[in-house]
Amino acid sequence: MEVKARAPGKIILSGEHAVVHGSTAVAASINLYTYVTLSFATAENDDSLKLQLKDLALEFSWPIGRIREALSNLGAPSSSTRTSCSMESIKTISALVEEENMPEAKIALTSGVSAFLWLYTSIQGFKPATVVVTSDLPLGSGLGSSAAFCVALSAALLAFSDSVNVDTKHLGWSIFGESDLELLNKWALEGEKIIHGKPSGIDNTVSAYGNMIKFKSGNLTRIKSNMPLKMLVTNTRVGRNTKALVAGVSERTLRHPNAMSFVFNAIDSISNELANIIQSPAPDDVSITEKEEKLEELMEMNQGLLQCMGVSHASIETVLRTTLKYKLASKLTGAGGGGCVLTLLPTLLSGTVVDKAIAELESCGFQCLIAGIGGNGVEFCFGGSS
Amino acid sequence: MEVKARAPGKIILSGEHAVVHGSTAVAASINLYTYVTLSFATAENDDSLKLQLKDLALEFSWPIGRIREALSNLGAPSSSTRTSCSMESIKTISALVEEENMPEAKIALTSGVSAFLWLYTSIQGFKPATVVVTSDLPLGSGLGSSAAFCVALSAALLAFSDSVNVDTKHLGWSIFGESDLELLNKWALEGEKIIHGKPSGIDNTVSAYGNMIKFKSGNLTRIKSNMPLKMLVTNTRVGRNTKALVAGVSERTLRHPNAMSFVFNAIDSISNELANIIQSPAPDDVSITEKEEKLEELMEMNQGLLQCMGVSHASIETVLRTTLKYKLASKLTGAGGGGCVLTLLPTLLSGTVVDKAIAELESCGFQCLIAGIGGNGVEFCFGGSS
Repeated sequence: MEVKARAPGKIILSGEHAVVHGSTAVAASINLYTYVTLSFATAENDDSLKLQLKDLALEFSWPIGRIREALSNLGAPSSSTRTSCSMESIKTISALVEEENMPEAKIALTSGVSAFLWLYTSIQGFKPATVVVTSDLPLGSGLGSSAAFCVALSAALLAFSDSVNVDTKHLGWSIFGESDLELLNKWALEGEKIIHGKPSGIDNTVSAYGNMIKFKSGNLTRIKSNMPLKMLVTNTRVGRNTKALVAGVSERTLRHPNAMSFVFNAIDSISNELANIIQSPAPDDVSITEKEEKLEELMEMNQGLLQCMGVSHASIETVLRTTLKYKLASKLTGAGGGGCVLTLLPTLLSGTVVDKAIAELESCGFQCLIAGIGGNGVEFCFGGSS
Repeated sequence: MEVKARAPGKIILSGEHAVVHGSTAVAASINLYTYVTLSFATAENDDSLKLQLKDLALEFSWPIGRIREALSNLGAPSSSTRTSCSMESIKTISALVEEENMPEAKIALTSGVSAFLWLYTSIQGFKPATVVVTSDLPLGSGLGSSAAFCVALSAALLAFSDSVNVDTKHLGWSIFGESDLELLNKWALEGEKIIHGKPSGIDNTVSAYGNMIKFKSGNLTRIKSNMPLKMLVTNTRVGRNTKALVAGVSERTLRHPNAMSFVFNAIDSISNELANIIQSPAPDDVSITEKEEKLEELMEMNQGLLQCMGVSHASIETVLRTTLKYKLASKLTGAGGGGCVLTLLPTLLSGTVVDKAIAELESCGFQCLIAGIGGNGVEFCFGGSS
């Protein structure tokens, strides 16, 4: 018996950075997923918990006895009552991860593996099992890969628990009910906390619920897209220091409080306009094209304002210039300073143009992904089929 | 007896486009000049008015009798009372210019030559003379070449008139007194009207008075720089349609009134900050470096906001990227869509870096000029020496 769960990544359509200073931002799910397959051990002699990160060719295996010994004093698992991971638990779990001899180059994954151990034992206790993870999402590029991992993992763990109400006989992908999703999202947020310290909760919420959310001053509002929307997501593969970028914007704001406050207000207007366009009904192709043109203009404006904040990067500018040659509008998404760039792919755009643009971007060493925007959130499927 | 006058070009340090929507802008003179040399005919048989545009290898020559015949019914010249050129005069003058068989490729110069004929006859009447024009300024690239021409021409013409109070014995460059400068600037504006229709008056005012001016809602304030400032001016050689660019920003403002109004307010703040930095006293090198860093940040911010307005261009982005490689901050100046880009050259920057950046920009087909910012306005010099 196994369950497979998939949870989408996310993009920030507008308002990154400015959201830290009180502006509205809009995030959306993308149809690029992280997949988690959970199967409990059936063989009597198999008494370990295994985690396989397929894309990274990494495998971890802990004897269940070792896990129980280390963690049982932390309290019995309770999948229905979400608890936060204490500092003490984190230390104990990190020690378990370190016993596994993480390769030096993958040391950044330690916190992700810790989140796995904590979510697994908190929800399922000390059962031997194998968990296999694969993903469409590049790691650490601002597409919410860690949240998608936490959401998909929580989904698989909860689907096999008594805390949610799911139909184990249903074939194909299923979605959770509203209250189950709420519980799942809380667990995923606890995982995110282990990985990121103080996550905003945006990434896991988008991954869990799908579609889009507007967020401002810590308040999240789920919104429903009323138009198909496709983006080219170009991963510049340039790593960045999100904390330093956020701090840079704050320092600039201290130096130029008036100008920057107008910039944040401009972005707030742009996010609200964008959300309104996406939510308004689109009766025919013509008005979809009109809406797309408006979105493109708002993306261009938002990108200019991000440049004004100082968070662009030469690699981002290269993507902008390349896509502009094909008359396509782009903006960075997430922290900037590298990371990913969004390019709107209009409904009536010819595939030839897309292919040419992608070929040119790839020749610069970038990774290109095409993503539908605003689709379903987390889904699960029993029996291992999909 | 001859007089030579030189008048500087101008750059917009901040606030282009936004000024149309009520924001403050800052313009400054640059030490790149248009030179006009005026010498009255001494030979008895020389009875023509000659205009030599040296840089363009163009020469025009009108028999004085032909000019008198065409224009004498327009009233006697009066250098001290500035008059505007009537529609009727414009037609008559254009006809005189057309008699000269302007080469097709230079047809855009017709209005400039008309302005010459009108200023000349209005101030000096029907005296045979030769006027020679040379310039450091590329034409039509937003550096105020036409205003510098009108200012230098007015200066030469007025220096030989009874309307101003100048010392013809002084050796080397002289400046006009305040009231003479005011008269000169009014004449130059009349010339600008013939060339541009409805000029803002900024270009000729900067060229006449030099230094810097702040302007907002039609009000010009002269300000005095308190720091040396050097810019690399890169002419992309990409021609642009200023009217279309201005109209594009207005249309975007109609579509996104809230966001754009915040953008214009941000630029207003930036212009005022920039003016304050330039005006504040700089006691030593360290604080000059600090001021330069602030100016660089404000330039980067302004450039982002101009991109938000949609007036950048691939050629401008190429200049930005190239100068960024040398850690130099740049912004477009003027209408955008091509034209010129400013790059601040810090006081302590090594000449080697400047040379490398220039070599790279020139290899892209751009023209590079180094300009001191905020120097003297129009000057004149009797006897042809300089």
